[in-house]
Amino acid sequence: MAAAGTISSRRVYTGKVISLDVDQVRFPDGTTGELEMIRHSGASAVVPVLDAGIPDPDIILIRQYRYAANAYLYEIPAGRLDPGESPEECAKRELHEETGYSVGQVRRLTTIYTTPGFTDEMIHIFVAEGLTGGVANREPDEFMELRAVPLSRAKAMVHSGEISDAKTAIGLLLVEASRRPK
Amino acid sequence: MAAAGTISSRRVYTGKVISLDVDQVRFPDGTTGELEMIRHSGASAVVPVLDAGIPDPDIILIRQYRYAANAYLYEIPAGRLDPGESPEECAKRELHEETGYSVGQVRRLTTIYTTPGFTDEMIHIFVAEGLTGGVANREPDEFMELRAVPLSRAKAMVHSGEISDAKTAIGLLLVEASRRPK
Repeated sequence: MAAAGTISSRRVYTGKVISLDVDQVRFPDGTTGELEMIRHSGASAVVPVLDAGIPDPDIILIRQYRYAANAYLYEIPAGRLDPGESPEECAKRELHEETGYSVGQVRRLTTIYTTPGFTDEMIHIFVAEGLTGGVANREPDEFMELRAVPLSRAKAMVHSGEISDAKTAIGLLLVEASRRPK
Repeated sequence: MAAAGTISSRRVYTGKVISLDVDQVRFPDGTTGELEMIRHSGASAVVPVLDAGIPDPDIILIRQYRYAANAYLYEIPAGRLDPGESPEECAKRELHEETGYSVGQVRRLTTIYTTPGFTDEMIHIFVAEGLTGGVANREPDEFMELRAVPLSRAKAMVHSGEISDAKTAIGLLLVEASRRPK
């Protein structure tokens, strides 16, 4: 029996951020079917921890307008991988571009499939400690604003639903767990 | 100045699971741009907890083939809302269809945007305790298999990356946190 995978693929749309394929697929049991598949090149996200040495350090969150939600969401810095860029490099670049902070090293927390029923998008999630620089160079604008929030409060915002972005929830919960006494 | 939102929308593809629009959008600062937007009707997911009265109860996970990942992923039961169906009803229906278990009530943990940069998909995440029935009626197949995993182990699988599905990671971390002594 043939292995599971692609039988044929039809490109429906090629976009700037995503592309759409409609694929004929063979499943592991030999059955076949058609699947709509959003192709995405992958992304990195990073939890920026200020002054990691204290018990309840501030986290830098971005409050930004999201058209998909028609609302402002709290998110950690994140963005798509540039061609040839490693996930670590992407995380450091996005941290700097979106917050003004720099960091020598990032540590990987996990890599997630955002919604594997219809897209291959993976987000590599990191934590950044030992930040230098800051927000002074960043122009404030009307739809992206930085907020420093204590980790305990950020965790509470995940539990209450005030933070509703998946990568942000996972990053914050993993950072919080990694700092908790065993 | 006009409010942020849709200026015009062009439907590129209407699919079974998702549709694709390319929208002209006005942002909160008055600038405009084009966005690719995957439209999805929303979904529910549910963390099934067996014997919730014990300290480290088993969680029912589904190990299933995902074409997007070309791999088997561990996930909690989940699926799209039927037309007119409430998120709670959907969670209970998907729990039953995918595991054979029934439950009287589900409790909402949170609602997430899976990846708000390019889709409006929201997943309502619930926990189900007090399960009745079971897996006896479910036909085993080659690409979906049920696994009972202690909550402590499921949490470790999120931290190690063995569980990489976003909704599953969030549901498990929230259930684990809600059961931890304050």
